[in-house]
Amino acid sequence: MVEPHGGRLVYNVVEPERGAGLPGLEIKPTLGPDGAPIRNPYREVVSIAMGFFSPVEGFMTRNEVDSVLRERRLLSGWLFPFPLIFDVDEEDLKKAGIKEGDAVALTLKGRPFAILQVEEVYKLGDRKELADAVFGTPEKNGEVVKRRFDEKHPGWLIYRSLRQVALAGKVWLLGQPKFREPYSRFWMPPAASRKYIEERGWKIVVAHQTRNVPHVGHEMLMKAALFSAGCGRPGDAVLVNAIIGAKRPGDYVDEAILEGHEALNKAGYFHPSRHVVTMTLWDMRYGGPLESILHGIIRQNMGATHHMFGRDHASVGDYYDPYATQYLWTHGLPSYGLNEPPHLTDKGLRIRPVVLGEFAYCPTCGGYTYLGGPGELPLCGHEVERLSGSLLRGVVLEGLRPPRVVMRLEVYDVIVKWWRVYGYPFVNERYLRLKEEQLEVV
Amino acid sequence: MVEPHGGRLVYNVVEPERGAGLPGLEIKPTLGPDGAPIRNPYREVVSIAMGFFSPVEGFMTRNEVDSVLRERRLLSGWLFPFPLIFDVDEEDLKKAGIKEGDAVALTLKGRPFAILQVEEVYKLGDRKELADAVFGTPEKNGEVVKRRFDEKHPGWLIYRSLRQVALAGKVWLLGQPKFREPYSRFWMPPAASRKYIEERGWKIVVAHQTRNVPHVGHEMLMKAALFSAGCGRPGDAVLVNAIIGAKRPGDYVDEAILEGHEALNKAGYFHPSRHVVTMTLWDMRYGGPLESILHGIIRQNMGATHHMFGRDHASVGDYYDPYATQYLWTHGLPSYGLNEPPHLTDKGLRIRPVVLGEFAYCPTCGGYTYLGGPGELPLCGHEVERLSGSLLRGVVLEGLRPPRVVMRLEVYDVIVKWWRVYGYPFVNERYLRLKEEQLEVV
Repeated sequence: MVEPHGGRLVYNVVEPERGAGLPGLEIKPTLGPDGAPIRNPYREVVSIAMGFFSPVEGFMTRNEVDSVLRERRLLSGWLFPFPLIFDVDEEDLKKAGIKEGDAVALTLKGRPFAILQVEEVYKLGDRKELADAVFGTPEKNGEVVKRRFDEKHPGWLIYRSLRQVALAGKVWLLGQPKFREPYSRFWMPPAASRKYIEERGWKIVVAHQTRNVPHVGHEMLMKAALFSAGCGRPGDAVLVNAIIGAKRPGDYVDEAILEGHEALNKAGYFHPSRHVVTMTLWDMRYGGPLESILHGIIRQNMGATHHMFGRDHASVGDYYDPYATQYLWTHGLPSYGLNEPPHLTDKGLRIRPVVLGEFAYCPTCGGYTYLGGPGELPLCGHEVERLSGSLLRGVVLEGLRPPRVVMRLEVYDVIVKWWRVYGYPFVNERYLRLKEEQLEVV
Repeated sequence: MVEPHGGRLVYNVVEPERGAGLPGLEIKPTLGPDGAPIRNPYREVVSIAMGFFSPVEGFMTRNEVDSVLRERRLLSGWLFPFPLIFDVDEEDLKKAGIKEGDAVALTLKGRPFAILQVEEVYKLGDRKELADAVFGTPEKNGEVVKRRFDEKHPGWLIYRSLRQVALAGKVWLLGQPKFREPYSRFWMPPAASRKYIEERGWKIVVAHQTRNVPHVGHEMLMKAALFSAGCGRPGDAVLVNAIIGAKRPGDYVDEAILEGHEALNKAGYFHPSRHVVTMTLWDMRYGGPLESILHGIIRQNMGATHHMFGRDHASVGDYYDPYATQYLWTHGLPSYGLNEPPHLTDKGLRIRPVVLGEFAYCPTCGGYTYLGGPGELPLCGHEVERLSGSLLRGVVLEGLRPPRVVMRLEVYDVIVKWWRVYGYPFVNERYLRLKEEQLEVV
């Protein structure tokens, strides 16, 4: 079994009673310019405490944020791509009378949810500069950043919109979180995921990042990754891990993403003994190559041995080069302080990359074919039909069922199911507000 | 570039004039019980001299045959699976007055073809015992041999039918062989093949053994092997290498095998820059796992980095376990003297195995799906349609075109083309006699 990132799996969960008598502080969502919720730090509290981000045990101090921004490493030296910041309003802090050294009961919708042991209270300064430092700039990071980040980038906007003050320190959940349907079915935190993998005897497990309802091209990527990870024999299983949280308008709703992937094994396109769908709470930063490091960390902690990285990994718009993530995992990103790929550097990841290009539908082959990545040749020599996610979204919005060769019927049915629930198949402001109202936990 | 087996590529070709004045000896085919030609040692002369079997430079001495039969190693210690024996009639030998130490001009259809430097002349003894020792017996080799070999096994029959006396010694071709169409198009001996690979910048080249016109299942195996060999990225190319020679009745004719594979890239199912079709002269021994070692040696010498081994590799009937070859490449074959897999043993192969199970057509997935090998789970969970080569041959014989999902139209056209030439799509006695009359070289 692959070891957790940093060597030890974090599991910071204590009895709910431990929250009693502590000063309370409500966890508040980050709001975009129009007041729509674009992040809720409760998701980070859960993911940190349940070990998804091991070895991180809490929100970062100013020094640690600086270290991450300088060289994408924690103060302990272990690779980590993003600052994890618990931001609060100065007034809320004053009102609660919280200071360094205090243990605080973080409340969610008014109910005690977690403990934060306040190690440091610091001002965040210029959040725009912070956001630029997180994602990079064309001037400083020209090897992968093609365009200046701005408010249209949902991840940049999160850092840009943080409150003034940050609380740093370890967090503990007050009891295990309980999830609403359908999330509860997909909740398999690192310790449970490792047990699941061990019980099934899986040796080669390829993680698949998703924020999408899968079309057949995704299915083929996962299947190809399974062969590629095996190195001379087929791998054992695909671990699908969906990022659940506030997403950008136009992405599919979280419930459809999870059940869409689940439909692939319920309907047998993957044998259920070779495929499992799980989730991680995280308001996606769409950080392309940087996000891929976080993905590697999360899935290594969950016990995956390999991670598939395709074209345009975890990105949006044309801020990053489409193959920035492939570049990272084959060359490193020197301008971010990474002179080697994440799995080849000291205190780096143990998970191995499977670096693939794009698949497209080939009517002549009668199936999907590999188009290759940068510097690679296509696998077949035919005219192919490229599958664009945006085009597919357009087809769906027109109420048209995509052809079976493009999307499995059973997957499409899931889209329709959640379309009926929310009145719209994709994330929009209404969905974001509803999601913030209900959250994923009960 | 992977090094040749044994470290040095054999290239024993001399000027044709070097044959002048030497005593001549005609290369005679091995005949089966009904007088049909089942082997012509000229093919071994060519393959040895052109380096396909490097480091072997000639036909084996009695000691070397014993060593191969005892532990599948040459006297130099390098792995080699089969005795290579140049057998002659005692009368022919006497008539030619050949003795140890002589250089002999081997003639083919009466024309000087090669030089054999006679190192040893020895009697072969009981050829039935020899054949048993070559292939194994259920008593001695129970881990993979399921049934006693007999005259129905074409490889066993070759050894069983050898003439009384063997000549051992190095061979040199008198000039490069010249091939008839369509063979000349596929002639790419090791030195040329290595150059071809180098010029294209291929780093990961997966060899595919074939004695078959490819159906779509074969195509999918090759494509899956390409991903599997890459170990985290797609491999570069597939090197198809067809075994050309006398085959068992019911196999496709050699010309259709070569042009059938070629059709896959001519019609674009493989991009021609990722696929090449080549051939090796060898009267197939159908030796399952043993033959797979020879295949590894041949393709390593040709410059392939990986070799795909599927179910029932190079076997016929139920003499060997269907996964005997997979067993060899994962565990070794201790009863044959191999305590480790061929690529993990001292003086073993440098080529890496890609060990796959079976693919089948899945109407629900709308394409081919991986069924898994021994101890493996299937990739999809649907009812699939297994593709039997015999069933497919039946369909062809009925004059029916197999469905496009089973065989590419362009490949089927090749079968029909050669059916018209020979009046029958498969090897039969007439084809074997015609082939022996014409041979592959002009």
